[in-house]
Amino acid sequence: MLQNIRVVLVNTSHPGNIGGAARAMKNMGLSRLVLVDPQDFPSHEADARASGADDVLAGAQVVATLEDALVGCNLVFGTSARERRIPWPLVDPRECASKVIEHAVQGEEIALVFGREHAGLTNEELQRCHFHVHIPSNPDFSSLNLGAAVQVLAYEVRMAWLALEGQLSKTENTEVAPERSSELATMDEMELFYEHLEKTLVDIGFLDPEKPRHLMPRLRRLYGRSSVNRSEMSILRGILTETQKVARGEPHKRKDQ
Amino acid sequence: MLQNIRVVLVNTSHPGNIGGAARAMKNMGLSRLVLVDPQDFPSHEADARASGADDVLAGAQVVATLEDALVGCNLVFGTSARERRIPWPLVDPRECASKVIEHAVQGEEIALVFGREHAGLTNEELQRCHFHVHIPSNPDFSSLNLGAAVQVLAYEVRMAWLALEGQLSKTENTEVAPERSSELATMDEMELFYEHLEKTLVDIGFLDPEKPRHLMPRLRRLYGRSSVNRSEMSILRGILTETQKVARGEPHKRKDQ
Repeated sequence: MLQNIRVVLVNTSHPGNIGGAARAMKNMGLSRLVLVDPQDFPSHEADARASGADDVLAGAQVVATLEDALVGCNLVFGTSARERRIPWPLVDPRECASKVIEHAVQGEEIALVFGREHAGLTNEELQRCHFHVHIPSNPDFSSLNLGAAVQVLAYEVRMAWLALEGQLSKTENTEVAPERSSELATMDEMELFYEHLEKTLVDIGFLDPEKPRHLMPRLRRLYGRSSVNRSEMSILRGILTETQKVARGEPHKRKDQ
Repeated sequence: MLQNIRVVLVNTSHPGNIGGAARAMKNMGLSRLVLVDPQDFPSHEADARASGADDVLAGAQVVATLEDALVGCNLVFGTSARERRIPWPLVDPRECASKVIEHAVQGEEIALVFGREHAGLTNEELQRCHFHVHIPSNPDFSSLNLGAAVQVLAYEVRMAWLALEGQLSKTENTEVAPERSSELATMDEMELFYEHLEKTLVDIGFLDPEKPRHLMPRLRRLYGRSSVNRSEMSILRGILTETQKVARGEPHKRKDQ
């Protein structure tokens, strides 16, 4: 579905930015690059900045006009740094990505159009777009590097695509192994731990049962919000057991004594 | 509030990337850049790529170690390209940004840490972070340009900030001011705690410095994700101090002995 999305760079002056854009695209799983009248392409600088996204550069289509670049497109977004005199439907990158994916999934062809480094897109070019995309930025320093702008939009497209695929929640969750429910300590294991902790704190003289100072509720709150897993629980219990031995004056394993 | 957020670049080799990062930061309204042992800085290439974000470069703090860069920080995010052997709380850029703003609004200090161009952050550096951030990317081409990675995170931070600002302007300002009573422990306080914990575990014979069994990384992960606040920190430190007294055979306060 991502192959339905083309990135169109209009009249780019610095080839390094073409390379940067290609790298950002490939990082985010996009592959179709269209260059409208680039000032310097192909170029070693583009290759260097692409840093391995050579296939995207090699497959780039070079055309003479924006019109040529948009042949076959169903939906076109044009990046716009500032508000224009002619009001146009304006979206932020997240809204843009959500529309992109919504249409790409239906097999439609989408274009994301980026303008010149200094001058952006002309009014005429912007009027060829269905939507304008504005990347929210510091009003005093609003012009993003071209590669960075491609990165932001491509990133949002990937996030929207992953959300649709349902991959995001699945892959991210499995990576966060300690939060998997099967590995978490159970409630009763946590209770046994708190009991053990309380006894140990009494043993070392830190907790005075007659003046508990809300110590246990505070420690419960701390460990409770950590989602302690089983292997951590066994470390914590081990520490308590050793501490109790020490408090009882039993020989312990310290090597330098 | 955005001034509570520092961007930390570790051991960057290409000065152009420092410039690119500075530009991305300023575009998104961030201004505090910390460079840990940069290989080439200051540099004309950094200035050129900063493209007007000279003030960010001029104000950049250059330090020798990641530890120095994190002094005073309450919450640290480290970018991670791949899964690590020791699983760590992992967030995507959006979740990261939401946590960043949630804490920055309370006046806490936040760091976003980015590793070396080719090697990323070391395991030891990653273990100093509360959370790892992974930018979802093409599994076959996953390594983003450093400036592009900074751009994505800074963009998400700005989006989260704008969303909050939107809420702020809608509701009464006073309603949103959160309590400061549960201020988080800073990174240096956490480091002192880990040092104290490690010594104590050696003292009671639980930790054998010659066979550390990943004990400290595991405990760092556990306490790191709990966002320990200052009053909890003083309880934990108090427990360690008492435990050490007991281990040294000093008289302790246990009443029933």
